[in-house]
Amino acid sequence: MVGHSDSAVNEVVEPTSEELLAEQIRVFNRMKGSTNFNRVAEDVYPVEVTKNKLVCEMVIQEQHLNSKGTLHGGQTATLTDVITARAVGVTVKDKGMASVELAVSYLLPVKVGDILEITAHVLKIGRTMAFTDCEFRRKSDGKMTAKGKHTLAFLPSQPGISVENGSQF
Amino acid sequence: MVGHSDSAVNEVVEPTSEELLAEQIRVFNRMKGSTNFNRVAEDVYPVEVTKNKLVCEMVIQEQHLNSKGTLHGGQTATLTDVITARAVGVTVKDKGMASVELAVSYLLPVKVGDILEITAHVLKIGRTMAFTDCEFRRKSDGKMTAKGKHTLAFLPSQPGISVENGSQF
Amino acid sequence: MVGHSDSAVNEVVEPTSEELLAEQIRVFNRMKGSTNFNRVAEDVYPVEVTKNKLVCEMVIQEQHLNSKGTLHGGQTATLTDVITARAVGVTVKDKGMASVELAVSYLLPVKVGDILEITAHVLKIGRTMAFTDCEFRRKSDGKMTAKGKHTLAFLPSQPGISVENGSQF
Amino acid sequence: MVGHSDSAVNEVVEPTSEELLAEQIRVFNRMKGSTNFNRVAEDVYPVEVTKNKLVCEMVIQEQHLNSKGTLHGGQTATLTDVITARAVGVTVKDKGMASVELAVSYLLPVKVGDILEITAHVLKIGRTMAFTDCEFRRKSDGKMTAKGKHTLAFLPSQPGISVENGSQF
Repeated sequence: MVGHSDSAVNEVVEPTSEELLAEQIRVFNRMKGSTNFNRVAEDVYPVEVTKNKLVCEMVIQEQHLNSKGTLHGGQTATLTDVITARAVGVTVKDKGMASVELAVSYLLPVKVGDILEITAHVLKIGRTMAFTDCEFRRKSDGKMTAKGKHTLAFLPSQPGISVENGSQF
Repeated sequence: MVGHSDSAVNEVVEPTSEELLAEQIRVFNRMKGSTNFNRVAEDVYPVEVTKNKLVCEMVIQEQHLNSKGTLHGGQTATLTDVITARAVGVTVKDKGMASVELAVSYLLPVKVGDILEITAHVLKIGRTMAFTDCEFRRKSDGKMTAKGKHTLAFLPSQPGISVENGSQF
Repeated sequence: MVGHSDSAVNEVVEPTSEELLAEQIRVFNRMKGSTNFNRVAEDVYPVEVTKNKLVCEMVIQEQHLNSKGTLHGGQTATLTDVITARAVGVTVKDKGMASVELAVSYLLPVKVGDILEITAHVLKIGRTMAFTDCEFRRKSDGKMTAKGKHTLAFLPSQPGISVENGSQF
Repeated sequence: MVGHSDSAVNEVVEPTSEELLAEQIRVFNRMKGSTNFNRVAEDVYPVEVTKNKLVCEMVIQEQHLNSKGTLHGGQTATLTDVITARAVGVTVKDKGMASVELAVSYLLPVKVGDILEITAHVLKIGRTMAFTDCEFRRKSDGKMTAKGKHTLAFLPSQPGISVENGSQF
């Protein structure tokens, strides 16, 4: 009896996929109106999340463009950075993270009004490092527009760094 | 005589280094208050330019940071993109350009108030492509904080694309 | 009738998947005993091929190792180069190709006797360039050991370059 | 007196540049006739070394080529891996190292008989990681033919890993 009650207390309840998604939506909502560089990801909307994958959408608007009127390479690079880090953060909640390497290949130009579907994959979470990649597709025809990768290092523990206070990344 | 007059007409007058620098300062000034993604480079100030090198400075402020209070990886990636493209644009003025590959290695965190010295090198300008790299150093001690590279493709000619109307990148 | 006969003449008969695989096996067989650097891929065996994907296997042996007794980073990089180029070559047969960018992330060490499953994906074949990536997995447990990418440029036509005479890459 | 003698015992004698170079030449000599993948670097000859830089030369021969008769992309990638790791090994002698990320940009084809000058720079040696880059130049005209980078992780200490027994990389 006591044993049963104990084990109920210790049981780790895995969050449902709805709960995981609701958490990611909260995290991206916090970026809206941000005064730091995270404002650049404020138009991102998470649509699906599992332990190894985070899928988001973004409608391309003027603030995401370069002078030629297509999606800016720096915008794509920043989305790769933020969304892959968030995908790692689904699992790793108590550690600060720092970028080690970021790389993006640009395959197709993207125009205003296009909806981008952005899928970050967690390739490996190790002891000191995480490896990820990220695909950008035009939702209308599924064509890949960019492909990124992002390697992160976990920081030595510092009190106060957490997803809760928004200081993890 | 005729020969002399002809050769005077055909003579290409190379711009002085002061003229080159003034042009780059004008280009970066145009980004201030931009409503597209180039606003992200509006705090960049060119300090030295040659045919193969563009050196800029930027004082790190809140709008450049991540949630941990250090320079955002996406900001560094965007600076790599913009400043290396500008370095190519010192020589190539009549062609549109598109990013092919961008990559950044992150060596050290950068704090508010730090002055970054950013040096873009043009490694090669070919027929269809240009190769560049980019070093980020903390001005106070000269330590490298990040290292980027950017490979660009020249676009097939399109009337109306030029550095003059700001549509080259 | 005439129409029918014309259309028969013009009809492009798509090779079957067995024919595609047989061709790739022939190409990799030609590397055995090569006196140039392609010898480094002589232990690769194609197992599946489509227009967008080439899957190969390789049993790790002493000649693939570094001094620590694990798969050498240069061996992995070379396999990324060769196998992704071959994957593009399934579709593009009449053009020479040159590497523009190659990048590899190393996730896990690989030991002698491990069987690597290497999957190259063709992400885009454009007018002047092709984009690919490449996953390395340990066959025994499916874990990803490395992830590569390779961007290639098509060379201006030169008579005599073809997959037939083995001079395409 | 005693003080003097003590200080003599504790004094770290920095090796001269001749001694550093002799050590690197010994290390590369050990690769000659190697049965593992390090054989691929057996034609490399160190010509200059400091704490932050290792310069080597290599004469391009048939075994370094692709099917088009130019330097193989995998050969260049492997040289980037080996020579940058060696450059870190000038300073870090007691730790095993593993590749995290390797990337190469290819600027110009290289032919048989060309002498390559390969310069590896150590950008940062941190607590758990080292950052490097690598320039390949054609010695005849100094033109850059490729540019690489290599990020390494230091392995947790294992008895028996050392430069002395050749098991560091």
